[in-house]
Amino acid sequence: MPEYKAPLRDMRFLIDHVFDFHTQYAALGAHDASPDMINAILEEGAKFCENVLAPLNRSGDEEGCHFDNGVVTTPAGFKDAFAQYVEGGWHGLAADPAYGGQGLPSSLGLVISEMVGSSNTSWGMYPGLTHGAMSAIHAHGTAEQKDTYLSKLTAGQWTGTMCLTEAHCGTDLGIIKTRAVPQADGSYAVTGSKIFISAGEHDMSDNIIHLVLAKLPDAPAGTKGISLFIVPKFLPDAAGEAGERNGVSCGSIEHKMGIKASATCVLNFDGAKGFLIGEPNKGLNCMFTMMNHARLGTGMQGLCLGEASFQGAVKYANDRLQMRALTGAKAPDKPADPIIVHPDVRRMLLTMKAFNEGNRALTYFTAQLLDVAHLGSDAEARQEAEDLLAFLTPICKAFMTDTGLEVTNHGMQVFGGHGFIREWGMEQLVRDCRIAPIYEGTNGIQALDLLGRKVLGSQGKLLRGFTRIVHKFCAANAGHPQLGSFVAQLNELNQQWGELTMQVGMAAMKNPDEVGAASVDYLMYSGYIILGYLWLRMALVAQAQLEAGEGDGDFCRGKLATSEFYFKRLLPRTAAHRAAIEAGSECLMKLPAALFAL
Amino acid sequence: MPEYKAPLRDMRFLIDHVFDFHTQYAALGAHDASPDMINAILEEGAKFCENVLAPLNRSGDEEGCHFDNGVVTTPAGFKDAFAQYVEGGWHGLAADPAYGGQGLPSSLGLVISEMVGSSNTSWGMYPGLTHGAMSAIHAHGTAEQKDTYLSKLTAGQWTGTMCLTEAHCGTDLGIIKTRAVPQADGSYAVTGSKIFISAGEHDMSDNIIHLVLAKLPDAPAGTKGISLFIVPKFLPDAAGEAGERNGVSCGSIEHKMGIKASATCVLNFDGAKGFLIGEPNKGLNCMFTMMNHARLGTGMQGLCLGEASFQGAVKYANDRLQMRALTGAKAPDKPADPIIVHPDVRRMLLTMKAFNEGNRALTYFTAQLLDVAHLGSDAEARQEAEDLLAFLTPICKAFMTDTGLEVTNHGMQVFGGHGFIREWGMEQLVRDCRIAPIYEGTNGIQALDLLGRKVLGSQGKLLRGFTRIVHKFCAANAGHPQLGSFVAQLNELNQQWGELTMQVGMAAMKNPDEVGAASVDYLMYSGYIILGYLWLRMALVAQAQLEAGEGDGDFCRGKLATSEFYFKRLLPRTAAHRAAIEAGSECLMKLPAALFAL
Repeated sequence: MPEYKAPLRDMRFLIDHVFDFHTQYAALGAHDASPDMINAILEEGAKFCENVLAPLNRSGDEEGCHFDNGVVTTPAGFKDAFAQYVEGGWHGLAADPAYGGQGLPSSLGLVISEMVGSSNTSWGMYPGLTHGAMSAIHAHGTAEQKDTYLSKLTAGQWTGTMCLTEAHCGTDLGIIKTRAVPQADGSYAVTGSKIFISAGEHDMSDNIIHLVLAKLPDAPAGTKGISLFIVPKFLPDAAGEAGERNGVSCGSIEHKMGIKASATCVLNFDGAKGFLIGEPNKGLNCMFTMMNHARLGTGMQGLCLGEASFQGAVKYANDRLQMRALTGAKAPDKPADPIIVHPDVRRMLLTMKAFNEGNRALTYFTAQLLDVAHLGSDAEARQEAEDLLAFLTPICKAFMTDTGLEVTNHGMQVFGGHGFIREWGMEQLVRDCRIAPIYEGTNGIQALDLLGRKVLGSQGKLLRGFTRIVHKFCAANAGHPQLGSFVAQLNELNQQWGELTMQVGMAAMKNPDEVGAASVDYLMYSGYIILGYLWLRMALVAQAQLEAGEGDGDFCRGKLATSEFYFKRLLPRTAAHRAAIEAGSECLMKLPAALFAL
Repeated sequence: MPEYKAPLRDMRFLIDHVFDFHTQYAALGAHDASPDMINAILEEGAKFCENVLAPLNRSGDEEGCHFDNGVVTTPAGFKDAFAQYVEGGWHGLAADPAYGGQGLPSSLGLVISEMVGSSNTSWGMYPGLTHGAMSAIHAHGTAEQKDTYLSKLTAGQWTGTMCLTEAHCGTDLGIIKTRAVPQADGSYAVTGSKIFISAGEHDMSDNIIHLVLAKLPDAPAGTKGISLFIVPKFLPDAAGEAGERNGVSCGSIEHKMGIKASATCVLNFDGAKGFLIGEPNKGLNCMFTMMNHARLGTGMQGLCLGEASFQGAVKYANDRLQMRALTGAKAPDKPADPIIVHPDVRRMLLTMKAFNEGNRALTYFTAQLLDVAHLGSDAEARQEAEDLLAFLTPICKAFMTDTGLEVTNHGMQVFGGHGFIREWGMEQLVRDCRIAPIYEGTNGIQALDLLGRKVLGSQGKLLRGFTRIVHKFCAANAGHPQLGSFVAQLNELNQQWGELTMQVGMAAMKNPDEVGAASVDYLMYSGYIILGYLWLRMALVAQAQLEAGEGDGDFCRGKLATSEFYFKRLLPRTAAHRAAIEAGSECLMKLPAALFAL
């Protein structure tokens, strides 16, 4: 199993220098997030994840979750680790102090989430889902609902879920069948069956608070007739503690390719008592308010697993002796050279490094926008942040998970045959990562959201909000003595991006299928350009530090070399995506469905 | 589990029309391979694979192999299926009639191998390894060795293995530690430990014949000091039957990501009696003589698993109802449209279809060359086939497995969340496929073999042998009324291919690292062009059949649509690979190894 060490140096480079969290926190009035506090959080978070969560990662995968007549038991050590996590204050880090949280900015919560995900993605699902439920209740619950649930959830005494999917629908929530019938006491009787419910049943908390999408008897058809309900596993009693068992039970858990220690449940609601949260028929809207955060979290799984894989691969590539360098022996005293001398091994490692560090920068960039959207006092700045978030969120989710899957596959490949063997831990990272492009809205759906709803739906406004930033950045750095050619490369792509979008938009006005035909390639194309922008920002800081004799010279040289690699070897992938976009929909749509397989 | 149906229509299209196996068989004197015989083989092979092997695929994955104190038991049904396979004559299909085989051409054996691999890749490893051992003994064994082993192996009474890898070396066989000490009776005492030995121990045959690479006491260092030995599990007795147990034992089996029903063994040789095969110190050469066949077989695993995944995905995409088409409801009587209406689902399906059918064409094209190399009477034609095989083999292995992995991942993605669940069978195909880019020489090694040894090592001669074919083909079809634009696109790429190779060759003369820096992208770039050529050959036949009112019109229209998709949406990926090749080695090599992870 690769040993996980939180990449604190890179995190600090971004926090302190590239994005300067400190100035933004001061401006947003997040005074608790002082540099000292941030430092302590990084150090202690790293220790917890490295020492408590990482050692449970492979054992959790091997053991998996157990199901016995409705009772789900998590792998050895999981429950205890959750208790330590709560006790260490990690669970309530970014939660509302009114309910026992520490009230630190979301961005800091995400920094810790990365460490959690890298050390143990399966385990991270349990607090992750709880955070989602907390956000929903916080945003849409009544005062009474908040009082009843938020303190318990923040304290980790209770945990939460999100119950959306049913066997016949995942993407298409408009056709859910779960029904909620109003009762005399103002509650609802919820009946139906939900599948793929992460953390739907387990032994880590005293109670589980399900947030359930269901339809009222008189609901309009489709997505405009969906309401959201709080359905606790145990109904809170008069003292606010877990009381009577509610009519919800776990029918089974899934046997999956990966994240095996995360319990994925079938939940049967059999006239369970539920409480409406938010307005009737506005359930999907309630869900969407926390979607940015949840999708960024899922996108981060690509980064998390990619980072873990990279750490394993670099170590192996330095240790494993095999063949001599093409330019002659580099370790003549040994039977062979370490495989990191081989250009193709370096190609894989640098691809991993470039995606991981680029995706981390994308995460932090987006996290800062989340902070502005949550904490900003200026309405215009908040709206601008919201617009950028709307644009970036599907890209974060899909680009980071697709590239994360590529990264974990490279990491496995670096190990050769040993990569395929479970005990080395590299193949688990691929399996754990493989769900990320699927859940929380498939990457295909993210791409439709980006191109159809966000970019074309805003007549290009949301795209221009970003290309304007890149344009200004390129103008300010044009002709840079060391990095000027990359500035020019980025600037040209940034311009092409707008033109290509226009082209697709024109075609889509005549034929809506053009959107779906271009969407995934458009999303990836956009992701590569965005990472180019972020890599250049990092490179400029590294170059400036080197010249000023500040910072860590070796680290800065690594940044510059990786940036160059990105511009020369990864960014040109935009050409293939562009060609695919320009190919249009006809070659996808002309073949009748019946003729696909003959 | 996707239900497997052998793609007989596509196979016949290639055999009868695109590559015309019949004329070639007649020319090679392979008169037993009559059209009637081929037809019977296709029909019966399909039945066996669909009805006997496919039903054991998922159960084999779930059960895996059992290890108990040196004894390995294969999953339920495996042993019986092997008996049926042997009884049906499949095992000896392409084997030498002198030892009980049917003597049919290799190309027909490969057609059946595809069906076997699609229905049950793990199971296919057992006969597959045996075929490899048979080839080695046939090519390099003494008359006595052939008499002793080949009939038993052909009859499936005994099976075989190839023992190359050791814990400290896989790629770098020059540093193996296994030793063979000459004994007074002319045999050798073989001592050492081999890992990753597929079919190294199991319960499917009476005896296992290991072909083992080891070093003689006076052997020169490196790959020029390796010899090959036959080490039977049970030593043949005077009657030629399995007699005394030899000093080889299975220490453990590996727990792997996939192909779990294939026993991957640690084999300990403890002074085991071995018999030299071939000349001393020429063991690697003996291995290489069968490498073309073995590597094509491994490449085919990408095709096999891709085909199985495609069959599952097309069915699901036609059955699964989710969302409405972007252009309005297509199945208004149903709650939603089948997902095959969505352009992005079609993009995934067509990508799968284009790679599978393209890879099948590449397999058949290469299989015909194998036939000429084995059976051709004209020395010049044989040499030409050998040269093309040398060039194409690494591409078949690496391109087909990398694209096969992409295909199986698309198939899983089409299933959404269900793709991640084991019972649906789609994730197993990804896991089973993931080993193919690693074993039988990693894809990185294939790429070095292609660019370094084959293309540049022949001063471009081996490349020109292929580009000349493409050039003639493009010249003959230039200005084709329907397909002329694709002919032009291919012709341009074919020319660019030569120029790019020259460019890399010039750079490599100054710096050998340029080879390793370009190799993987060069291989993929080459693969895309080769598939372009083959897709165009198929399209021309389909177009001609349509115009003549021959063949199956629907099938031909499917070919043409997929061909168009390939040219418009997949072939442009060459642009990204070309840019990566042109980026050169500097951006890979400049970062000191110690600075990769900080």
